[in-house]
Amino acid sequence: MEQIQGGVTAAKGFEAAGTAANIKYKDRMDMAMIYSSTPCKVAGTFTTNVVKAAPVMWDKDIVDNSPYAQAVIVNAGIANACTGKQGMDYCREEAQTASGLLNIPENSVLVGSTGVIGMQLPIDRINEGIKKLAAAKDGSIEAGTTASKAIMTTDTVNKEIAVTIELDGKTVTIGGMSKGSGMIHPNMCTMLAYITTDAAISKELLQEALGNSIIDSYNMISVDGDTSTNDTCLLLANGLAGNTEITEKGEAYDKFCEALNFVNTYLARKMAGDGEGATALFETTVVNAATKQEARILAKSVIGSSLCKAAIYGHDANFGRFLCALGYSGVKFDPEKVELFFESKAGKMLIYKDGVATGYSEEEATKILSEPEVTVLVDMKMGTETATAWGCDLTYDYVKINADYRS
Amino acid sequence: MEQIQGGVTAAKGFEAAGTAANIKYKDRMDMAMIYSSTPCKVAGTFTTNVVKAAPVMWDKDIVDNSPYAQAVIVNAGIANACTGKQGMDYCREEAQTASGLLNIPENSVLVGSTGVIGMQLPIDRINEGIKKLAAAKDGSIEAGTTASKAIMTTDTVNKEIAVTIELDGKTVTIGGMSKGSGMIHPNMCTMLAYITTDAAISKELLQEALGNSIIDSYNMISVDGDTSTNDTCLLLANGLAGNTEITEKGEAYDKFCEALNFVNTYLARKMAGDGEGATALFETTVVNAATKQEARILAKSVIGSSLCKAAIYGHDANFGRFLCALGYSGVKFDPEKVELFFESKAGKMLIYKDGVATGYSEEEATKILSEPEVTVLVDMKMGTETATAWGCDLTYDYVKINADYRS
Repeated sequence: MEQIQGGVTAAKGFEAAGTAANIKYKDRMDMAMIYSSTPCKVAGTFTTNVVKAAPVMWDKDIVDNSPYAQAVIVNAGIANACTGKQGMDYCREEAQTASGLLNIPENSVLVGSTGVIGMQLPIDRINEGIKKLAAAKDGSIEAGTTASKAIMTTDTVNKEIAVTIELDGKTVTIGGMSKGSGMIHPNMCTMLAYITTDAAISKELLQEALGNSIIDSYNMISVDGDTSTNDTCLLLANGLAGNTEITEKGEAYDKFCEALNFVNTYLARKMAGDGEGATALFETTVVNAATKQEARILAKSVIGSSLCKAAIYGHDANFGRFLCALGYSGVKFDPEKVELFFESKAGKMLIYKDGVATGYSEEEATKILSEPEVTVLVDMKMGTETATAWGCDLTYDYVKINADYRS
Repeated sequence: MEQIQGGVTAAKGFEAAGTAANIKYKDRMDMAMIYSSTPCKVAGTFTTNVVKAAPVMWDKDIVDNSPYAQAVIVNAGIANACTGKQGMDYCREEAQTASGLLNIPENSVLVGSTGVIGMQLPIDRINEGIKKLAAAKDGSIEAGTTASKAIMTTDTVNKEIAVTIELDGKTVTIGGMSKGSGMIHPNMCTMLAYITTDAAISKELLQEALGNSIIDSYNMISVDGDTSTNDTCLLLANGLAGNTEITEKGEAYDKFCEALNFVNTYLARKMAGDGEGATALFETTVVNAATKQEARILAKSVIGSSLCKAAIYGHDANFGRFLCALGYSGVKFDPEKVELFFESKAGKMLIYKDGVATGYSEEEATKILSEPEVTVLVDMKMGTETATAWGCDLTYDYVKINADYRS
C-alpha cells in the first residue's frame, strides 16, 4: 500500500468540484460535487440517531434499492434535519437538478448536508450551486481538494487522503474526504465522509468492507459525545482500475480492506484532532484487555470524558480522572492491576501502577502532555485485545463556538 | 410536610461542626462532622464506578455489616481515591481517632472524602481536624450550616434543607446537606449527601426508602457526564422523634418516603444548578413517554449533551440539538410526533411540532432561555410516563476550573 497525493479524485474516472452557493454565509465555499464517469456500486453507513436528516433517508434508500450511484451533491451550512416532508422533497429536487445536468438517473444521485438543524434549505440557491458544480467539475487532484474544502463548517483544515494498492497487476486507488468538528460521536458512522475507489468489487463485499472498517475508525472518535442526525459515510466503487472483480473473500479482499481501513482511520483521526476548539489530538490506546469490545469501550470512555479532555487542555497530569473514566465505562476490572502511561513526542512515562501514583515528575508529565498529539496508554493486564480511540481537548473555544453557533 | 430552617442538625439528637484543617488550601474550612447522641440505623448508596475511593469501601462495609452508626467525618480537598492500602488504613485511623474522642465504636464511624484523586490524605492534619470537630460540635442550626459549608470544593453555595412530617402525633424531622459541582453524573448516588432523621424506622425500610429515593433525584442530574469514584449518600436515623417504629409499608412509610424524596430532589436540583462554572439550571421534563425508564433516559440524554448545554449558555433556541440528543438516547420514537417547548419564568413557547419548527419568535425564545432556570419540555405522545432531569449550562468557567483544578 502506498499513500499518494489527492483525495476523492485520485481514483480513475472520478471528478469533483466545490463552489460558493451563499447557503448560510456569503462568499464562502459551501457546496461540493463528486461525479464518476461510469456508474458505481455504492455502500453506505448512516447515523443510528432516531432523528435522521432527510439526506440520510434519501441516501439509505439509494444504497439499499438503486442499481448504482454516479454523483454526490453535498452542502454545508444547513443540515436539512428536522425539516419534515419539505426536507425530503428538497432532496429529490436536488437529485432531479443534478440528473438533468449530468444526464444520469435521479436515483443515482446521492445528497448530503451538514450545518444547522431545523432550517429548510434555500433550494433556489442550491439549484444554482448544482449548475455551477456541474460546469466546474474535473478530475484533477486540485478539484478533489476544492471539494474537501467546500464541505467544511467549523473545521479548521480540510481532510483528504488517497492510497494505492496492487491487485492482480492493476493499480487500485482509494481516496476520500471528510468533515467533522462538532456533534461528533459517530455511532455506525461519522458526520460526512466520502470515499471513492476504482476497484472492481461486488456490492455485497463493498458494503461488508465498509461496515467493518468504520468500527475501529469513525466509531472510535468523539468530539463532544453528541451523535449527529446526519452521520453519513459513502463508498463509491466504479471498477475502472480493471482488476478482476472481487466477489469473494481472500487475498484481494483483504488488501482492499486494509487500504480502506487506512483511509478511514486517517480521516477519523484528522476529524478528532480538528474537533471544535481543539488544541490537541487526544488518543487513548487500551492494551491487554479481555475482549476487543471491552478495549473499545474503555478507550472511548476516556476520550469522551469532559474532565479528561479539560485535563489535556490544561496539560495537567490529573491521572485520577483517567482512572475514573475507565471505572465508569461499564467494564469490570481490578483498578489495582491497571497500569497507566502518558506518551507523546516528548516521551513516555508510567504514571499509575499497583493502585497508586508512581511518584512521577509533574514537570516531566506536563512536558509530555503539552504536545499537539497526546496518548494515554492503558495496560489492563487482563488479556490480549487492543483498541485505540481519538478525541480532542475541551477548550474555551469549544464553548464559544457552540454558545453562539447560529449567530 | 413542612419545610423548616436548617440541615443535618434539624432532627433531634444530631450535632455537627466544620473546621479548617489545611488539607489542601490554607484558612478555608475543609472538614465536617455529623454526630448523633444515640446510635443510628444507617442506609447508604454508593458509586457504581469500578474505581471506588477508600471511604466508599469503608462506608459500604459499615452500612452492610455494622449494627449501627453514630458519626460521620468528611474532608474536602483530597478524595482518597486511587490510594491503595494506605488509603484504607487512613479511613480506619480516622475512625479510630473519632472513636476515642466521641467514645463510640470504631465501626460506627463513617468517613467521606472529596477532592483530587490520587493523593494521600495528610493524616496528621486530618486527626487534628477531628479533635477540633469533636470539641466544637453542637446541635444548633448554625452548626449544620457550618458543616454544609465545610464540605464544599468548587461549589459556590452550600446546600442544605430540612422538613418535618407528623407520624402518629409526633413531629418527625428529615434534614440533609450535600456538595456537588464537578465529576457529577451520579449512578446509584451522587458525590456526597448526608441525610439525618429522628424517625424510628427499621433498617431494611430505611435502605429501601433511600434506594428508591435516589432514582429520581441524584440519579437524574449531571454536570459533566463523569461518574465519580466517591459518590456517597448516607441516611442516618436515630429514632428520637418517638414515633412508632416503621417496620412495614403503609401510610407512615409513604409519608416518610415523600419527605425523603423532597429532601433528596431539593439537594440534587441544587447541585445541578451549582455545577462547575454554571450560569443556569437546565431542567428537562419528558411527559407522555411510553415507560418511566424511557422518560428518564430521554430527559438525561438532553441535559447531558454538551451541545444542548452550550446552547443554554448562549441563550440560543437551537432546538435541533435537543431533538438530536433525544434521538441518540437509545429510545425509539417517531420524531414527527414529538412536541418540544422552552419554558422559564419569562414564559412558555412551542418550538417544534409535526417534524418541523413552529415559526416561533427567536427574540421571545431567547428571552425565555435567558433566565437562571430554564426548562425544556418534551411531549413524546407515546404514553403517560413522566421524568425530570437536571443539569447546567456549559461555560468558559467549566473549562477554566477543570483545566487547572489541581493548581
